[in-house]
Amino acid sequence: MTFRNTFTWVLSALAVLPLYATANIDIHQAPSRPKNMIIMVGDGMGPAYTSAYRYFQDNPDTEEIEQTVFDRLLVGMASTYPARESGYVTDSAASATALATGFKSYNGAIAVDINKRPLTTIMQMAKARGMSTGVAVTAQVNHATPAAFLAHNESRKNYEAIAADMLKSDADVILGGGQKYFSEALLSQFSAKGYQHITELAQLDSITQPKVLGLFAEVQLPWVIDDTDANTLSKLTQKSLDLLSQNEKGFVLLVEGSLIDWAGHNNDIATAMAEMQGFANAIEVVEQYIRQHPDTLLVVTADHNTGGLSIGANGEYQWDTKLLKGISASPASIATHAIAADDWQAGVNQQLGFDVNSTELQQLTNARMQGKSTLEVALKKIIDTRSYTGWTTSGHTGVDVQVFAMGPAADLFKGNQDNTHIAEKMMSLLPKIN
Amino acid sequence: MTFRNTFTWVLSALAVLPLYATANIDIHQAPSRPKNMIIMVGDGMGPAYTSAYRYFQDNPDTEEIEQTVFDRLLVGMASTYPARESGYVTDSAASATALATGFKSYNGAIAVDINKRPLTTIMQMAKARGMSTGVAVTAQVNHATPAAFLAHNESRKNYEAIAADMLKSDADVILGGGQKYFSEALLSQFSAKGYQHITELAQLDSITQPKVLGLFAEVQLPWVIDDTDANTLSKLTQKSLDLLSQNEKGFVLLVEGSLIDWAGHNNDIATAMAEMQGFANAIEVVEQYIRQHPDTLLVVTADHNTGGLSIGANGEYQWDTKLLKGISASPASIATHAIAADDWQAGVNQQLGFDVNSTELQQLTNARMQGKSTLEVALKKIIDTRSYTGWTTSGHTGVDVQVFAMGPAADLFKGNQDNTHIAEKMMSLLPKIN
Ligand SMILES: [Zn+2]
Ligand SMILES: [Zn+2]
Repeated sequence: MTFRNTFTWVLSALAVLPLYATANIDIHQAPSRPKNMIIMVGDGMGPAYTSAYRYFQDNPDTEEIEQTVFDRLLVGMASTYPARESGYVTDSAASATALATGFKSYNGAIAVDINKRPLTTIMQMAKARGMSTGVAVTAQVNHATPAAFLAHNESRKNYEAIAADMLKSDADVILGGGQKYFSEALLSQFSAKGYQHITELAQLDSITQPKVLGLFAEVQLPWVIDDTDANTLSKLTQKSLDLLSQNEKGFVLLVEGSLIDWAGHNNDIATAMAEMQGFANAIEVVEQYIRQHPDTLLVVTADHNTGGLSIGANGEYQWDTKLLKGISASPASIATHAIAADDWQAGVNQQLGFDVNSTELQQLTNARMQGKSTLEVALKKIIDTRSYTGWTTSGHTGVDVQVFAMGPAADLFKGNQDNTHIAEKMMSLLPKIN
Repeated sequence: MTFRNTFTWVLSALAVLPLYATANIDIHQAPSRPKNMIIMVGDGMGPAYTSAYRYFQDNPDTEEIEQTVFDRLLVGMASTYPARESGYVTDSAASATALATGFKSYNGAIAVDINKRPLTTIMQMAKARGMSTGVAVTAQVNHATPAAFLAHNESRKNYEAIAADMLKSDADVILGGGQKYFSEALLSQFSAKGYQHITELAQLDSITQPKVLGLFAEVQLPWVIDDTDANTLSKLTQKSLDLLSQNEKGFVLLVEGSLIDWAGHNNDIATAMAEMQGFANAIEVVEQYIRQHPDTLLVVTADHNTGGLSIGANGEYQWDTKLLKGISASPASIATHAIAADDWQAGVNQQLGFDVNSTELQQLTNARMQGKSTLEVALKKIIDTRSYTGWTTSGHTGVDVQVFAMGPAADLFKGNQDNTHIAEKMMSLLPKIN
């Protein structure tokens, strides 16, 4: 490099500096374009979830609180409100539409506008540029978030129609749950288009090139806390990267930790923290990939917050992570076992990791007589009370979510932004056409 | 400027670039030093408060959601946990100690370490450099947050001792509430040290130079929602800036929106949103000051989150800001009026801004017979239910808080950090001694 070239480079680097002076980023001044882009969505993962996860994974025997991948990668936050007609609190469909298309729509919309007209997704734009695309999720692959990236529909509830529409996406990798939504006829159409169809995680090893449709569960994948393998999403993510990397023109990949949201809807803190662990592990897979492929941009965010989770509740200034870490099965699974067994109390104590007291035992005994779901609620109540965990809703809440980024142009996502801007910024980083 | 000088400057600017690549900032590479530093603390103002405030102040008749000062200035987030012995959920004393000294301590500590030894505050460091210092708050001036900046005590509850200790701080501006904690003897000591002592906001105009001790209420200032003047904190802030600016060596100022936290403890959304408005207005005063004095750094954060507030509750995907905006008095004030009046129902409807229905009227009638505080709780319950506002606690919660910054070195505060790092970074920006 000559002195003159150095100086030119130095000056062009300086041109980037004003970017850092204000929260409003001029996206046309992006420092460099990534070849590949990965967006990872922690469904329902509001700020309380990432804080809680830090304390959940903290080793209380060390002086310091260990940093998480979220701490390493935080760059900003995003508002999530849907189109005006749906108020201030979004559902997963409207927010996924915002992240996939850059447009606000109504709650329930799958990549369609408020007049139900299809919106162009970043996945379609990537395909138009000869890039590969993929999704890897823990819900059914036609659930709201992946649906808005690979299909268009006026309602997230039209699961069969969305599954069928995903055929048109020409996506190279589709991994997750949802067998029940894919008829034999539809699977034949996927095969005819060149998709390898698999239903077991063990079959992943046999897939060495796109395209692949991997449906590993009837609906959603198992809870991480109940799974024999806690790293399923990491494996799906790694396989997606391996397959999509084969395209020299690059790729766009969506990875979703879908079930954080489901645990949040259930107000189930033990299950939620295990899902956070599974999602964090998958982010670390991508972090490692970017160290080896520095031409790749990662953006991690949430579509909204779920449950109104709080760290501390009922006036207490504490949160008992030791108790939470000791729980070895989901309350749903504990309840199922306890309903089935005659001598159920020892099993419950063992799976909870603590011995319930006499008052709690009476609560559980009464609840068990009313069936599994009542027993599950009673178990969650004991866990919440003992751990000082709070919830306000079985639905979503409107708090802004965090934005994390790594790789080229990661700084574009710093400061405050709207979720539609995340899509706009990512789209602006795609190669120019013609 | 010669070419060589330009190139040197360009290279030194480039040395700053790696700062932006990682969340971990090297504080010794600060791009430039501010002359003045202002730290503003929204007590209890977790992420749900700033999101809620955006929607609260939104004009629903326009298509867009208007940006707030928080949206403009967001740069990062901060963890707030106290010293290990106090668990993961901080109180205002431990977090103020972190922000004032850069050290974790136990809940209750006022600028002392876990062994109750005094810690050096940023205000002491500023004084040692010949700079001016000040605090302007809406709580009593010896409440936890200002106390940790201007005093040292093993317990936040030792209000009289803290008030007395503030004399030693030599602070140039002390504005807020707390008359009851300052004896005549103590006030004489302040006078002997050259402090002008005032007790009425109207007297502020007569103060044209430091030092000033302004105590405008027995304990805390009036709620913004009940105040005839909603811009009291803005006025205290502007006066502080006017007085402190007279020192050519610069100043460090703490401004606290103290009562956001108090409204949060009360689970009182209408009062909390008005306090947010008052705090946001004061931030805008500082924003304007920095436009005129670009050598000034502003850092805004919260000490923790309070109440477990959620935007949306009980399964509903909505938040009714129209209703909240129509409430013209605090539930405490509405209850006081309703207890005093015989024909109380019309007054309640008028102050709430909506007509309670027959079920609600029955609830209020029953509550009123049990006295003011029961009636206040009943009013808040109706407001929460109608507006879809959720709470989990009368205390604090452990979610990370946001960090906002403007001015020289604002970028130091980007990404994730601990609250102690905020103090460390600000201290690193003070002029070097010797
Ligand atoms: Zn959801
Ligand atoms: Zn508080």
